Amino acid sequence: MKCYLLFIAATLATCQGLPVLDTYLRWIQSSTLKDIESHQSDAEKIINHALYGPAQNQSYNRLAEFTDTFGSRIAGSQNLENAIDYMVTKLKEDGLDNVHTEAAQVPHWVRGNESAVMISPRYHPMAMLGLGSSIGTPPEGVTADVLVVTSFDDLKAKASKAKGKIIVYNQQYVSYGKTVQYRALGAREAAKVGGVASLIRSVTPFSIYSPHTGWQDYDDNVTKIPTACITIEDAEMMQRMQERGVKIRVTLKMEAKNLPPVMSRNTVAEIKGSKYPEQVVLVSGHLDSWDVGQGAMDDGGGAFISWQALSIIRQLGLQPKRTIRMVLWTAEEEGGFGSQQYYKEHKKNIDNFDLVMESDDGTFMPLGFQFAGNSAARTIMQKVLEPIQKVQSIPLLSGAEGEDIDEWISAGVPGGSIATDQNKYFKFHHTNADTMTVQDPTEMNICTALWTVVAYTVADMEDMLPR
Amino acid sequence: MKCYLLFIAATLATCQGLPVLDTYLRWIQSSTLKDIESHQSDAEKIINHALYGPAQNQSYNRLAEFTDTFGSRIAGSQNLENAIDYMVTKLKEDGLDNVHTEAAQVPHWVRGNESAVMISPRYHPMAMLGLGSSIGTPPEGVTADVLVVTSFDDLKAKASKAKGKIIVYNQQYVSYGKTVQYRALGAREAAKVGGVASLIRSVTPFSIYSPHTGWQDYDDNVTKIPTACITIEDAEMMQRMQERGVKIRVTLKMEAKNLPPVMSRNTVAEIKGSKYPEQVVLVSGHLDSWDVGQGAMDDGGGAFISWQALSIIRQLGLQPKRTIRMVLWTAEEEGGFGSQQYYKEHKKNIDNFDLVMESDDGTFMPLGFQFAGNSAARTIMQKVLEPIQKVQSIPLLSGAEGEDIDEWISAGVPGGSIATDQNKYFKFHHTNADTMTVQDPTEMNICTALWTVVAYTVADMEDMLPR
Repeated sequence: MKCYLLFIAATLATCQGLPVLDTYLRWIQSSTLKDIESHQSDAEKIINHALYGPAQNQSYNRLAEFTDTFGSRIAGSQNLENAIDYMVTKLKEDGLDNVHTEAAQVPHWVRGNESAVMISPRYHPMAMLGLGSSIGTPPEGVTADVLVVTSFDDLKAKASKAKGKIIVYNQQYVSYGKTVQYRALGAREAAKVGGVASLIRSVTPFSIYSPHTGWQDYDDNVTKIPTACITIEDAEMMQRMQERGVKIRVTLKMEAKNLPPVMSRNTVAEIKGSKYPEQVVLVSGHLDSWDVGQGAMDDGGGAFISWQALSIIRQLGLQPKRTIRMVLWTAEEEGGFGSQQYYKEHKKNIDNFDLVMESDDGTFMPLGFQFAGNSAARTIMQKVLEPIQKVQSIPLLSGAEGEDIDEWISAGVPGGSIATDQNKYFKFHHTNADTMTVQDPTEMNICTALWTVVAYTVADMEDMLPR
Repeated sequence: MKCYLLFIAATLATCQGLPVLDTYLRWIQSSTLKDIESHQSDAEKIINHALYGPAQNQSYNRLAEFTDTFGSRIAGSQNLENAIDYMVTKLKEDGLDNVHTEAAQVPHWVRGNESAVMISPRYHPMAMLGLGSSIGTPPEGVTADVLVVTSFDDLKAKASKAKGKIIVYNQQYVSYGKTVQYRALGAREAAKVGGVASLIRSVTPFSIYSPHTGWQDYDDNVTKIPTACITIEDAEMMQRMQERGVKIRVTLKMEAKNLPPVMSRNTVAEIKGSKYPEQVVLVSGHLDSWDVGQGAMDDGGGAFISWQALSIIRQLGLQPKRTIRMVLWTAEEEGGFGSQQYYKEHKKNIDNFDLVMESDDGTFMPLGFQFAGNSAARTIMQKVLEPIQKVQSIPLLSGAEGEDIDEWISAGVPGGSIATDQNKYFKFHHTNADTMTVQDPTEMNICTALWTVVAYTVADMEDMLPR
């Protein structure tokens, strides 16, 4: 209730500078900040428990056992469903409340065998990974001359040479956000100018001959052509060859298939709120992964620090006023199918969603807490983060990130996520190297402490965050 | 002649502190240093030509065309012989003197198809590379339980459990020099305690699920078992599984074969000396590579800056007093077969070998010039390096490195090599990622300038280096 007054007061004070409302706003803020301060000793308990106590390395160890046991978990696979069953068992064993799953229909893309071989000017099998949703090739493959381009503009400039060619994109890596368009749209743009397949330089700042997979988007009005990512190394080599006037010919074989959608599940567990159980602070990560690597970083880490937040609160015998709900999304990699279904079913209760958090950028050493919310809420979050600053400097940043929480944030719910070293993250992203080797127990402890302190403090404040 | 006096003088002065000899030594040194100073303008010409003139990026571009054309060049392969033929043609086209090859017998190991698949606790095909000289497995492979060890000591401690097992080494990476023993000796040590195969964590500080190959050494008195490198990621995972008491079973299949030795060739070209043509400054790298990647870094870079040194001297119309000889060794990777043959045939002229240089640690930005020689020679080399310091700080370091020049250095010939960032080098070493992508044209220009200034100045001094 008070939070709405705070919101109105903040808005009016900001817009009109009214002195009475301003005073009232300060009074409310000061009362809220005192409320947060009263949680400081709980926050310290959480931090000590996560970093030095019985929960030390627990999220890492649980994740190691999970990923070692199941490996990769692509949407549509039985392996993902087995992994979900395993999580339900573990969450129940952990004594959490209301452990259950919620159904969601998900795509079912299957890779099959695949290869890309340069057959001219010399025989050179290339490391590659077909892209999610790509069609396959005929069994004999697609064999064609190569046209290398460095951008969509370059493709347009060379459009007259593209017909019947395999289009190789050798775009520079700028950032994942900017460069991923080549993976997502490379096939459709190639097809528009008559390309018969596309091979895209992997979207990464660094390679040890490492192909990266990921989802791609056909346009229903454009011919669908098979598409895969190759390494930086081979994309650069083919460009050099083309610049020398060398004719390049490649055979691409892909058994990839888009099968009918299947049912999967979001996995849910809670710490039930004592006073406002219908109000929710949501912590999340996605349990599905690509079908390469083991989904330890993307997004096992995010999923397991979310579990760990609930686990630590239960271990410490804390009970927040409102419910902390963990959701492990399904089929994030294909475009957030699990979270979209969840939003559809739960948006009617949107007023009760206090804060939605997702960790899906890696659980490396946190470089900041990304927060989407108004300035009054930012003031509160700044205070919430105070206890963790003794462990690691964690500035409050703008703009929470997470495909699975975007709809909630767009609808006005405050959102949170963890900023990490993205240059490191995208070296391993969607590759066979997404394993426990990139995870560090201490870094996961600190992410866990941050995640738990934020979730618990916000869930136990008297008021919901202003929005 | 004077250099012998210098040597005697230096030795006596050092041992006995005689004032007369000390004075004589200083006089000689000062005359030698003046000789070097007189080469400063030639050195500057070389540097300008290599960095900003017509030779800018030439070594990089030549190497790119070479590696793009031939790819990998393992000893014993027709591809290496074709690459040697190509080099002979190019060296002749470049107008160099005495272009020829010298025969050397080399091992002929062939990889064939290979795989390592974890079949229990779950199906997990592992990235792997068989090790050079390894025997193959029977066609159905070797299937056995796994014993993970972290060191040779740990293997001894667990020896009673090793019989019939596939031994997995999950040793920590300390440095290449220290850690490579597991790759070299892992199979024989495993066999001694009854292991049926060995899988060794790749010798690298960093992995993107990257297996590294390399040579390994059987002991003729110990059963030979198949051996390969796996990734850091899988070695670590198997150790975690073992610590949890999980039984691991792996099927290893390798078609590897040790075929009869074949003839290969060292490739030689020269700038003939004007005054002491029988005296030689030798610059070198090895032309062979592993059968993965494209041998751009190991050791295309070293080979091509050595060619470039001669090329630049010819382009500038310089003619040193003694001969600068480039040798591109064959079969370095198998243990220096080309260079051993060369030493055997040329050691009778060892007194005429003034300085032997090899670049085989990467042609990244030089961090120093490694030099093996006595203190009088070091004083000279310090002076020789002066002109290059304006471009890049290049301290004179101790202990030249290079498998192909070791015998000469051990026999007392001064030796030189380039120190580079070894943490970077060993990320790519003996992998599919050894391609032009790790090479940088500017860094190669600077390596070339350094290599050429040293070779030319030493070759054109009146005296040979003291030894």
